Amino acid sequence: MNLAVNTDRLVAELNALAAISDCPEPPPAVTRIVFTPTDRRARDYLAGLYRAAGLAVRVDAIGNVFARWEGSDPSAAVVGTGSHCDALPHAGMYDGTVGVLGGLEAIRTLKAAGFKPRRSIELVMITSEEPTRFGLGCLGSRAMVGALGDVSRLIDDAGDSLEVVRQRAGFTGSLESTKLPPGYHHAWVELHIEQGPELEAKGLPIGVVTGIAAPLQAELTVHGEGGHAGAVLMPRRHDALNAAAEMIGAIERLATTSPSPDLVATVGRLDVHPGAANSIPSRVKFSLDLRDIDGANRDRVFASIEQELTVIANRRDVSWVKSINNADPPAPADPLVISAIESACQELGHAYQSMPSRAYHDSLFMARIAPMGMIFIPCRAGVSHRPDEYSSPEQLTVGVEVLAQTLANLSA
Amino acid sequence: MNLAVNTDRLVAELNALAAISDCPEPPPAVTRIVFTPTDRRARDYLAGLYRAAGLAVRVDAIGNVFARWEGSDPSAAVVGTGSHCDALPHAGMYDGTVGVLGGLEAIRTLKAAGFKPRRSIELVMITSEEPTRFGLGCLGSRAMVGALGDVSRLIDDAGDSLEVVRQRAGFTGSLESTKLPPGYHHAWVELHIEQGPELEAKGLPIGVVTGIAAPLQAELTVHGEGGHAGAVLMPRRHDALNAAAEMIGAIERLATTSPSPDLVATVGRLDVHPGAANSIPSRVKFSLDLRDIDGANRDRVFASIEQELTVIANRRDVSWVKSINNADPPAPADPLVISAIESACQELGHAYQSMPSRAYHDSLFMARIAPMGMIFIPCRAGVSHRPDEYSSPEQLTVGVEVLAQTLANLSA
Repeated sequence: MNLAVNTDRLVAELNALAAISDCPEPPPAVTRIVFTPTDRRARDYLAGLYRAAGLAVRVDAIGNVFARWEGSDPSAAVVGTGSHCDALPHAGMYDGTVGVLGGLEAIRTLKAAGFKPRRSIELVMITSEEPTRFGLGCLGSRAMVGALGDVSRLIDDAGDSLEVVRQRAGFTGSLESTKLPPGYHHAWVELHIEQGPELEAKGLPIGVVTGIAAPLQAELTVHGEGGHAGAVLMPRRHDALNAAAEMIGAIERLATTSPSPDLVATVGRLDVHPGAANSIPSRVKFSLDLRDIDGANRDRVFASIEQELTVIANRRDVSWVKSINNADPPAPADPLVISAIESACQELGHAYQSMPSRAYHDSLFMARIAPMGMIFIPCRAGVSHRPDEYSSPEQLTVGVEVLAQTLANLSA
Repeated sequence: MNLAVNTDRLVAELNALAAISDCPEPPPAVTRIVFTPTDRRARDYLAGLYRAAGLAVRVDAIGNVFARWEGSDPSAAVVGTGSHCDALPHAGMYDGTVGVLGGLEAIRTLKAAGFKPRRSIELVMITSEEPTRFGLGCLGSRAMVGALGDVSRLIDDAGDSLEVVRQRAGFTGSLESTKLPPGYHHAWVELHIEQGPELEAKGLPIGVVTGIAAPLQAELTVHGEGGHAGAVLMPRRHDALNAAAEMIGAIERLATTSPSPDLVATVGRLDVHPGAANSIPSRVKFSLDLRDIDGANRDRVFASIEQELTVIANRRDVSWVKSINNADPPAPADPLVISAIESACQELGHAYQSMPSRAYHDSLFMARIAPMGMIFIPCRAGVSHRPDEYSSPEQLTVGVEVLAQTLANLSA
């Protein structure tokens, strides 16, 4: 089969999608938050491309968009692929989009090559992989696998619930209806940029993911004592930000000295109350994102962090509380999909290595209902979640070729 | 002279003013930011009270409101009093307002006692003592003394300049016109809550201020390297928030170990960019408020902080820059006004002590053009800039009595 990826078209579409952005800076800086007018414009753009490619489009109650290429055996379990199109504030243009537009290009390439799938191939644009708006990532994939939990806890910064916001954005119906039936998928495969430096460093075009690291995400709140910045002398203070600063230092130290070199800890958000230059902070809220390939080590490090935070809080006579947003277990990739990807690489003559995914993805949840695999392509210097995130047209092309051949292998 | 302060009226007016607030919580929590519709409602409320008291009202180009009680010698230099009515986000109801409504009550009490001033007495509600909106405090008093500097640097969070915002709020005319002519004041005296715990601890109703501490306010920005919270391993990170946290710890340590026990350092605002739970912070901006009675010690400690921040930045391979918002010199009170306040206390039989003001006030600037003094009353536990800020009706009454007698002494 001759797989002639139309690289120019793919790059043009990635650029067009990147231009649909709320970032004050122009592309490649991108901000695209779920259920905003910008997110909806992106969805409209994609739906137009799907229809032009002859795919049947279906949207579920949480806004996941399915584009289906019907196979010769429509009753057979489907081969799914896809990723997300939402982008963090001031992020890049390849994270997620490569799996959506690359998935579309893979399907168009297979069609152009005359391939006829036995199993239907379904490309899914998954809602809100990023946790930006509701504090919880992978909303769409959680919904598809029935792991969304109690949605009443999902509230955005404006105080609006997921239920209100999605319906206002036009996605109605019960969230229960988004759950896919058992046996729906024969396999699930996601194409994504590595978001790490390994493939580039080794000069390899493809990473075959062996498993996805386990994220733990929490909100920590420190309660101290406010007051006038001029009038309260230093020994009498119980400054919530000074306490939080020491806590952040402890988190960094415990993460850096963890027995597992793969453990990473990030405090990415921090809000100070009341937030005035001349007021002693009385309350500080910050996020903690803790990940490891080894879920047990991650949980041990979190326990150490909790101990240390309590020591710091007690010494400073402040208090702290936690709210765990999620603490999902890691997910191994399935041998069926790993083998289909490796075969594709070998058939196409592309070098590859096996590797874990340190970032998490919708595929972490898709693994709960489908044999799951992921294809990584390199990105420059491992940079992601930044405007200078970049994969070259050549790297994108190899990724789409491997995805197309993998879909062909799985859907035959 | 029989000074019969109408305490009930004063407390009712303080409560009514506190209810004009943008704080989501009810009074005593107050938020009143300069040039908002709420600030303008507060101004309208005060102007009504001034007119009802028979005072002539004048408003200058920056929104300072003058309420004048004409003396028998209208050409004599005036005795000024006043304070501010803006309130930080989620602050209390006594800071500033006690000097404005208490000043009004002092004038009404003198009128009721049959007192006739020789010098005119002018009560001023001064615009934006708090730095909330434009990052610089004492806007109105700086303008009156010609110390506003280059106003083009004063921009609010929405990106609007002071010039645009004040004119939109209806305060037009040249800012130059707000400058008071030389010799305008015979004396200036401000009644204010202590915002510290000393008077309450000693059971004293009055503090006579000897001088006002010198504030240095700066914005510090740390530039690090962003990236995906899952994918960049700890040793490769240049996390701007981890760097800022260490810097905040160093600032706290240098302030606490300063040779002067009066030195205080506060980081009250902190903004993280891009501010997503799963993005490594690439940029952190935070405020520094550094004060001391001893201006030279304050500047020495700031130099030590700068050195330490550079050491931390170099070790972490991040960079930092500073922007100094202000570094005003301290102001001693004038013997003329100190003596008028002390005489008033003695005549009324109220105990008092001399003390510095660790917080800064509009009087810091008024001292540049007028012999300046301040009268402090106790506030519960020294708490200020918080909703539980509190002075009792009895404490307010003594303060107003002393202010009234001081105004009488100075205006005779």
